[in-house]
Order: sequence, then structure tokens, then C-alpha cells
Amino acid sequence: MTPYRDMTKEELLELKSDLDEQFDAIKAKGLNLDMSRGKPSTEQLNLSMEMMDVLRSDSDLVCEEGVDCRNYGVLDGIREAKQLLADMMEVPKDNIVIFGNSSLNIMYDTISRSMTQGVMGSTPWCRLDKVKFLCPVPGYDRHFAITEYFGIEMINIPMTPTGPDMDLVEEYVSSDPAVKGIWCVPKYSNPQGITYSDVTVHRFAKLKPAAEDFRIFWDNAYGIHHLYEDTQDYLLEILMECKKEGHPDMVYKFASTSKISFPGSGIGAIAASDANLADIRKQMRIQTIGHDKVNQLRHARYFKDIHGMVKHMKRHANVMRPKFDIVLHTLEKELGGLGIGNWLAPRGGYFISFDSMNGCAKQIVAKAKEAGLIMTDAGATFPYGKDPADSNIRIAPSYPTVEELKTAVEIFTLSVKLVSIEKILSEMLGIE
Amino acid sequence: MTPYRDMTKEELLELKSDLDEQFDAIKAKGLNLDMSRGKPSTEQLNLSMEMMDVLRSDSDLVCEEGVDCRNYGVLDGIREAKQLLADMMEVPKDNIVIFGNSSLNIMYDTISRSMTQGVMGSTPWCRLDKVKFLCPVPGYDRHFAITEYFGIEMINIPMTPTGPDMDLVEEYVSSDPAVKGIWCVPKYSNPQGITYSDVTVHRFAKLKPAAEDFRIFWDNAYGIHHLYEDTQDYLLEILMECKKEGHPDMVYKFASTSKISFPGSGIGAIAASDANLADIRKQMRIQTIGHDKVNQLRHARYFKDIHGMVKHMKRHANVMRPKFDIVLHTLEKELGGLGIGNWLAPRGGYFISFDSMNGCAKQIVAKAKEAGLIMTDAGATFPYGKDPADSNIRIAPSYPTVEELKTAVEIFTLSVKLVSIEKILSEMLGIE
Repeated sequence: MTPYRDMTKEELLELKSDLDEQFDAIKAKGLNLDMSRGKPSTEQLNLSMEMMDVLRSDSDLVCEEGVDCRNYGVLDGIREAKQLLADMMEVPKDNIVIFGNSSLNIMYDTISRSMTQGVMGSTPWCRLDKVKFLCPVPGYDRHFAITEYFGIEMINIPMTPTGPDMDLVEEYVSSDPAVKGIWCVPKYSNPQGITYSDVTVHRFAKLKPAAEDFRIFWDNAYGIHHLYEDTQDYLLEILMECKKEGHPDMVYKFASTSKISFPGSGIGAIAASDANLADIRKQMRIQTIGHDKVNQLRHARYFKDIHGMVKHMKRHANVMRPKFDIVLHTLEKELGGLGIGNWLAPRGGYFISFDSMNGCAKQIVAKAKEAGLIMTDAGATFPYGKDPADSNIRIAPSYPTVEELKTAVEIFTLSVKLVSIEKILSEMLGIE
Repeated sequence: MTPYRDMTKEELLELKSDLDEQFDAIKAKGLNLDMSRGKPSTEQLNLSMEMMDVLRSDSDLVCEEGVDCRNYGVLDGIREAKQLLADMMEVPKDNIVIFGNSSLNIMYDTISRSMTQGVMGSTPWCRLDKVKFLCPVPGYDRHFAITEYFGIEMINIPMTPTGPDMDLVEEYVSSDPAVKGIWCVPKYSNPQGITYSDVTVHRFAKLKPAAEDFRIFWDNAYGIHHLYEDTQDYLLEILMECKKEGHPDMVYKFASTSKISFPGSGIGAIAASDANLADIRKQMRIQTIGHDKVNQLRHARYFKDIHGMVKHMKRHANVMRPKFDIVLHTLEKELGGLGIGNWLAPRGGYFISFDSMNGCAKQIVAKAKEAGLIMTDAGATFPYGKDPADSNIRIAPSYPTVEELKTAVEIFTLSVKLVSIEKILSEMLGIE
């Protein structure tokens, strides 16, 4: 493969003419493909259908602590659900609180509570002139949307292959008391699929925040969402590391079963220190009489225990792996060595992150849309939707079928090539 | 019956001696009874058990708009659930948004959003020096807990047999821009079982608030929770009345299926004007990807339509009616004409409200506890838990069996008699 930048203007124009033809041929098919969101496929949803039969009209719906799950009571989760999610989150079951169907909602509530009530007795953030959050980029758009909604200033922190740039994180956290938090997806990160290294996690645990109410928002959304049986990433458990370093209260950990059972009908949880959970329960007691215990019981009885959940996740991996393989294989085959894009091959999670040449991402996404392929908006992986380099594109291969993906990635790589050639050509013209 | 206040000291002492003996005999039984919370009984929970069989592993879980309820998507509720709850709440289905399992949580979120974001563009309440809420008393403790949690000043508004004292409400609302809301349980109110009269609802709709962001928090928790087939209360529909009066945005209406299907595993909703719902959806989009659609579908398919729900509520009424009857009958038999307490006979809802002689409620609740009967804390029906007259006690007859209730009410009436006699005697001594 000749890198595009080593090609002459004439070679590029000829190539472009070829590619245009290919693109028009696909465009003529009037396709409708979507690689925009991390939605499980129908095949994955079908994996959990037996959960529907776990609780029946003749079932006993009394949970381990002797409470009838159909009635009011049990504020912070039934024991068997706590045990299951605690094992999933690798924390003691006393350090967990079960909420409703969405960990995103728990994160929202956590920020909202900090705004109006403060954190463990600190000044409510809404009374401060300035509140800032660190945002490793590229990252998860819905995290950034929450902090933006509350008027919190977001600071980009570049990601490295071992996690966020910790020199920068340490500098901001230790020097600026307005920095109150950092958004992290520490395992199979959204969108890069990076797992924070042991050194990175250690450096997180050793942070010395200028603000007593600084918290790490550790969204372990993909903790058991491996693609391969034999090659898995391992992530140090952050609660324990923080405890060892004498900062047990510095972290909130979030997770849910959204991509394990059913998105939107799963159960979400927060794990944190005793002191943090006491603070959280104070709010919960006001906010609700309790979350959906019947659904907690349904999950606990269906999976039985963490081993059951791990076995279940292997079935998800079997569906996901061929999809990641086809995308990665095609990217390599079509774009490898051309010098017009970079990506990583993740071992789990829901995304592949693609970095185009600077200034091309928006055009690539627009180009793909012309041929009927919806990608996540370029820029979405950055705070305020603004990617300074206009280069990052998130690829979400989970929802389409393998057949659809083949076409989708073809459209995508064609779009990358065409936009890159135009970019190089316009630079050449600029120089001439 | 001779009113206690007409009895001589000697007569009272003799009566007290008799009653003490009866009380000690019951106390010796070591009972454990609870009339403290509005929890449905097991018999009521069993009425909905077939809901568990509605969705099975071989069911099609696609809702009317063609969305797979198992996956992400549909922010504000599936169409069939909206239709069901809209009919239940007597509003158009486009004026409803479905949330999670708890209407209390929706109310909390509504106040929380007003604190940090304001209401339809108004100044966020957290930036104001003072925010006030009107609280008809006696009322629902969990309402008052929310406003207290956010530091909102609560102002007591006395209830009358036709609803809150509207002269007072009008005066506060029209003159004080710090008054941002009023908590209402307009039908079969908690705890008195009062339904607001047509005149009261009209006066609500005609309010001319000094604050543009004043809202009526209309918690129609017991809208279809009748006790009797033939004698039901009717409540004017507030959204329509407000619209007619040119104030379509002045009201939020809340309801849930907690006491229809399963408490904690039902679905909750808010009804409001288009403009209010647009404001609410702005928050929802940040807070969640969506609530539990599988449970929405389960409810819609189980009840089918509002007629199915109404038929279902008759089965609830059949369980509740004998319980209310035994309490009301015993109150009348034991306390009628004694001049030591007042109560109303509600036609629906979950509570009976008892007003003792001033200064006796706390002692009555304590006395009942001695004999193993848990009542709602005296004062709980008032903001800050402070009943200025120390006279209101909430009776919740739903959870115990009829047999248990017989004993529970016996303990209660004995406690009322004994505390009242002591009170009268101590007043006599004060006079001597």
C-alpha cells in the first residue's frame, strides 16, 4: 500500500475517480444502515428471553431478607441483587446500592445531588462560582451532556493507550479546588476500548485533590463485556486501591446490567465507601420509597450468581466477536498503510474508535450518510460536541447484522478514502 | 354516651381504672400490629399476580410504535402505556410522560430540576434567597420531606371539608412571588380522604400567581381508588380547568399504578401542558436513555385499557371496604359522643384521619405503641413533623387483616380514651 500522501496529484485524481464510481454504486442501492449507538442486537436480546419466565403467577416473590418484593420496602436493594451486582462490580455487597434501570440516571442524580446538597457536607456546587470536571477525550457523549446541563466547565484530558494523561490529571486535581470530578470509563473505554493500566489506576488512587469534594466518576460500564475468552483485559479495583491509599471516599463506581440483560429493563447500581453511601441514602430516602424489587429478584433468580452472569456474557461475546472482527479486518484491509487513519483493536466493550486525518471527521460522517450509513456525529465524543482536531469517529458495530456490517464498513472506508484524498488534494492546491 | 368533659373527677377516675385494666390485658398479649403506612395487603398484591404471566419467553415484545421494548429507545413512554395512564389520569395521551416506578420520584425530580434549572426559563430556585411552598395540612409526609430537603420554606394551609382554605391560598399565591408551589392530594386526600369540591378546583384554576414559575403539584394518587361502587367522589380535571382559565402551564399532575398493580414495581407518570412537558423532556434526555419499557408493556397488556383497570380496582375495593368499615364502625361505637376526637368517613383512598383533643396525639401514639400497635408518628402529617395542635393521627387500615384491625382499633380507642382522661384530669387539677 502506498500512503496517500506519497502519491502524486495525478495518481490521487485517478484513484478518486475509481472510488467515486464505487461510492455511487453503493449509494444507488438506497441503503439504510446504522453504526451510531451501542445498542445490543436482537440476537443478543434473545439471549435473555428466559428471564421472562423466571417469575410467574405462582412464584414466591419473597426475597432473602423475608420481604415481599411486590410491596413497598427495602430502600437500597434486595440482598440477592446486591450480592450479584457486588460480585459483578468486584466490591463487598455492603458497599453497593441498587437503583432503577439505568446507571446513567444514577450518575445524573449524583451530580444533581452535589449541585443542591453538596458532597458529604461540603458547599453545594450550585453556590460556587465555578465547578469544573475533567473529561478524558475521546469519551462518552452522555457523560459530557450531564455536566454541560448543570453548567459545569469541562476540561479535555487526552487519552493515552494506558488511560487518561495522568500528569495532566494530577496537576489539575491537586492545584484547582474548582475541579470536582473526572468522568472515567476505565475498562474497554467508550469509544477507544482502552483499559486503564495498573499504573494509571494507582495514580488515580493516589490523587491528592485540592477539593475535599472531588470524586472520581468511575463508570465501569463494560466490566465483564469481553470479546475473547482467552485474551481479556484486567482492571485494578478502584475502591480498594483508594481505600489502601487512605482516600476511601474519593470514588463513585457505576454499573448496570443494561448490556447484560435488557437495555432499559435492567438494574443499575452505585458502589462507594460507607460514608458516601450514607450520604446517598439520605437523598434516596427523600426521593423514593424504593426501586423495582420485582425486577431485582427477576435478575437475581435468572443469573443465580456471578458465574451464571459470566457464562451469559460468553454468549454475548459469541455474537459480538464476528462483528468486531469484520470491522477490524476491513479497516486493516482497506485502510492499513494508507496513512489516513488510526484505530485500536479492543478486547471488549461496544466500540471501535477511528481517528481520521485532522479536519476530516465531520466530512467523513456526512459522506457516509450520503450512502445511507448513520454514524455517531463527529465531535460527539468530546465535551460540547467539539473535537478540536475534527478527527475522531466512533464506530458501533453491535446492532447491525454481520452482513449489514460488511456493507456499512465498506461505505465507511470508501468515505474515509474519498474525504482524505480531497483533503490532500486541497492541501496540494494550497501549496501550488 | 356522656361526653368525658361532662363527667366528674370521680367518674373519670373510676372509668380510667376500668380502662387501665382492659389496656393491661391487651398489652399482656405482646401483640405486634402496624397501622402506620398505606401499604396494600398481601391479598391485594395477589390480585395482580397474573400480570407475571403476561410477558413470557415466547412473547413478542414489540410495542405499538414498532419498537422492541427490550432495547434502548422511546424516551417518554410507549404509546399503549401512555394511553392507559392518560385515561387513568383523565388527560389526553399527548399530555403525559411515563417515568419509572414511582410518582414520588417524579415529584422529587421536578423540584430538583426547578432548583438547578428553573421552570420554563425562570431563575433556578437555588439562586433565590427564599423559596416557599404552601402545604395543606394535615398532608402527606413524603411531600413535605422533599421540600424540606431542598430548604424550601413550608407554610401550613388548613384543610376544610372541601379542600385547602382557598382564601389563604389565593392570598399567598397572588401576593408573594417567593411562593412557587402547593402540594395537593386532591382526591381521597392523604390523610383525611377529602376530595376537593368543584368550587375549590375552580379557584385553583383561577389563581393569579405573583410568580410566573408557580406550579400546583397535583398528586392524584388515589384517582380511581374508590371504596364503594355506588358512592364515589368526582374531581374536576385540573389541567383542563387551568387551560380554560388561560393558565395551561400552572399545574403538574402526578399518578402511578403503585396501589393498582405492585407498589415499587408499577409505573409512574406526569401530566402537564405541552410547554411544561417540553421543559421536562429536556431534562429527561440528559438524565436517562429511557425508563423500563418492558414493565410499561406488561402493564398495558395486562390491564388492556381503562375499563380493565376500573374492574381491577373494584377487586381492590372489595378487600379494602371491610377494613375501613371495621375501623369506622369501632371508632363510632367506642368514641362517638365522647367529645374526645373527630374523624371523617372517606369514600376512597388509603387513610382515615383522626383528630384528638389538642395536645394528645403524641401521647396516644406512644400509648398504642406500649400495647404493640405502631401508628404513623404524630406530627408526620405536618411540615417539619410539627403539628401545632398535637392532635392529628393518621390511621392506615390497608395492611393488617380484618381480624388484626379489630384488635388494633381496640388498642387505638383505648389509648385515645386513656390519654384524654389524663388530659382532662390534669386540667381539672390545674383549675383546682
